[in-house]
Amino acid sequence: MAAKSFYKGFTLGILGGGQLGRMLIQPCINLNVKTAVLDPDPEAPCNGVCTKFSTGSFKDYDTVMQFGQHADILTIEIEHVNVDALEALEKQGKTIYPQPSVIRLVQDKGLQKQFYKQNGIPTSDFVLVDTIGELQNHVHFLPAFQKTRTSGYDGRGVKGLFVPEDFNEALEGPSLLEKKVDYDKEIAVIVARNTTGETAVYPVVELVFHPEANLLNYLASPGAVSDTVAAKAKNIAVEIIEKLNMVGVLAVEMFVTPDEEVLVNEIAPRPHNSGHQTIEANITSQYEQHLRAILGLPLGATDSLYPSVMINLLGEQGYEGEAVYEGLDEALKIRGVYIHLYGKQITKPYRKMGHATITGKDWKSVHEKVKRIQDILKIIA
Amino acid sequence: MAAKSFYKGFTLGILGGGQLGRMLIQPCINLNVKTAVLDPDPEAPCNGVCTKFSTGSFKDYDTVMQFGQHADILTIEIEHVNVDALEALEKQGKTIYPQPSVIRLVQDKGLQKQFYKQNGIPTSDFVLVDTIGELQNHVHFLPAFQKTRTSGYDGRGVKGLFVPEDFNEALEGPSLLEKKVDYDKEIAVIVARNTTGETAVYPVVELVFHPEANLLNYLASPGAVSDTVAAKAKNIAVEIIEKLNMVGVLAVEMFVTPDEEVLVNEIAPRPHNSGHQTIEANITSQYEQHLRAILGLPLGATDSLYPSVMINLLGEQGYEGEAVYEGLDEALKIRGVYIHLYGKQITKPYRKMGHATITGKDWKSVHEKVKRIQDILKIIA
Repeated sequence: MAAKSFYKGFTLGILGGGQLGRMLIQPCINLNVKTAVLDPDPEAPCNGVCTKFSTGSFKDYDTVMQFGQHADILTIEIEHVNVDALEALEKQGKTIYPQPSVIRLVQDKGLQKQFYKQNGIPTSDFVLVDTIGELQNHVHFLPAFQKTRTSGYDGRGVKGLFVPEDFNEALEGPSLLEKKVDYDKEIAVIVARNTTGETAVYPVVELVFHPEANLLNYLASPGAVSDTVAAKAKNIAVEIIEKLNMVGVLAVEMFVTPDEEVLVNEIAPRPHNSGHQTIEANITSQYEQHLRAILGLPLGATDSLYPSVMINLLGEQGYEGEAVYEGLDEALKIRGVYIHLYGKQITKPYRKMGHATITGKDWKSVHEKVKRIQDILKIIA
Repeated sequence: MAAKSFYKGFTLGILGGGQLGRMLIQPCINLNVKTAVLDPDPEAPCNGVCTKFSTGSFKDYDTVMQFGQHADILTIEIEHVNVDALEALEKQGKTIYPQPSVIRLVQDKGLQKQFYKQNGIPTSDFVLVDTIGELQNHVHFLPAFQKTRTSGYDGRGVKGLFVPEDFNEALEGPSLLEKKVDYDKEIAVIVARNTTGETAVYPVVELVFHPEANLLNYLASPGAVSDTVAAKAKNIAVEIIEKLNMVGVLAVEMFVTPDEEVLVNEIAPRPHNSGHQTIEANITSQYEQHLRAILGLPLGATDSLYPSVMINLLGEQGYEGEAVYEGLDEALKIRGVYIHLYGKQITKPYRKMGHATITGKDWKSVHEKVKRIQDILKIIA
């Protein structure tokens, strides 16, 4: 139930010190919640902005066990954490949201897919294989995408297998073979559920990916989808978080097929890249919402305030070293543009260095500003 | 000129660790600006949210001199700082905004008044006196307000002198005797000026004061004033910041007389209580604006996004001790209400513990929510 005295010297422990943690810390300040962060990189985005930073691996059992002792509630900003330690801490009585059982499920793309199937949640057909050799039994499944069951992230651990010859380049180890979906759009929905079971769902957003880096290029909110698709997508998101019995914020990425079918691609049980724009463009940000959910507070309204586009600010190709934000002054001149830098000193090609949320009175003005930002703002070294 | 590399391990030093500093730190995170804060109280609101907190007096010369060495730019969140040290640091080449000369002027209400007079800025008539005895020479000035020239704050150091008998209760030391103004409204305007001389002015806000505590009760933005009054008030604010040649954010508090004269009451060269609502209810918050101004960045748009009211959350009378936020859960249920707690563990009657910004589609809905918040949210111990 509600952590009634969360504003009295209360500490939220966050596993992972990246930009998602950094943006989660900002609303913590508004609710008197102190923050402790664990990350192996002393240069992580959260260092210098959290109350207490600990350098150490969130994948290491003993480190997580020790870190957990100093927090009143634990949460994550990355899924790839030591779940055994979290389950042991949970047994000791520690409050952990999202629950370790949910994190364990999400860490394994095979278990995720089985969960959808068992619960009648629409998703593309799939088979699970343990070795490369087994793939040969599933030639009829092509064209498909092969995904390693664990450790995939931002396009790593994914391989397109379109013709049998592609098996030569298949990935090693236990994996998921997913039938390629012909889709019109990729969308995402963020949903929150608090400790009392209350849920709140954000408007559908549309994701457009960068062709080379396989990273989000831009995101439009609210997304241009039919009411039918929006309703389907929101229902699916609520159904998933309820079936998982999860507390916190959950991002659900989905495909929309030409005949308006909505299929779940994957989920992340935490604030997500597809919800950055909620900071300025929705009544309640996904970060504050996550905090409300895990602290047992009422959830906030999720409505969009205006049309918005979120673009990731990626390290320019061909540059590596101390980051220089070329065009930042010009970008800050544009009305209704909100820049978030992530505190990373070193840029690399396609590294997520920050994001910009671009708002406007209508889509035309938003898209003009987006084009301008993409033209002028470059992260070089 | 512009601090071009502010995002490269740059540290902003802030004299004062109160709530204004705390809210200034939040946008620093978005621009990769690290923060160092100096405050005598280790429990100050900024401790735990800034990058580096130093316990020490911002009124002490040596402490300020030493603190200044570790910052790339210095700013303030309270005026009552050691200006001799800031001037010495400025001579050493340190960048300090607002400029020490401005802080020195504002610290002395007598100098402030002379500045208005010299620059033709409308303000109530006044005389300066050095001793209580001198007051007798100015009986014709009553009814008036006596204000100590230095150290007044939040209603302290102010005495109403309405009839000659009141001289018995007059304040000691050099003071300002100001003719009582008959006014309809108190308003405030926040104006910003950056290092290139660009200015940006916020919409007029209307202030309503708490009759007993002499603290702001609530503030409405944009304020209900005529276009004439709004234009006068904005022009005055811009004129003051330009005449001061000041860099940063300046709050100008003004009286509106029944015949729509606008008279300057006082100024504060920093983010101000009368601009809290800009965080959610204007395109650019006063805190981000201050940061843009002092870093030499272009200023942001100042427009109101919707009608809003800001209420200070004060410690309830009759309670002192560890704060309990009664009704907070209920308050968080209300759509478009933004709660900011200041990280103060101990409540006292009328202590500023936080604020709430209440937004809505129209004034009717805003005022209904305000009433509800004032009914349910109590800070007790």
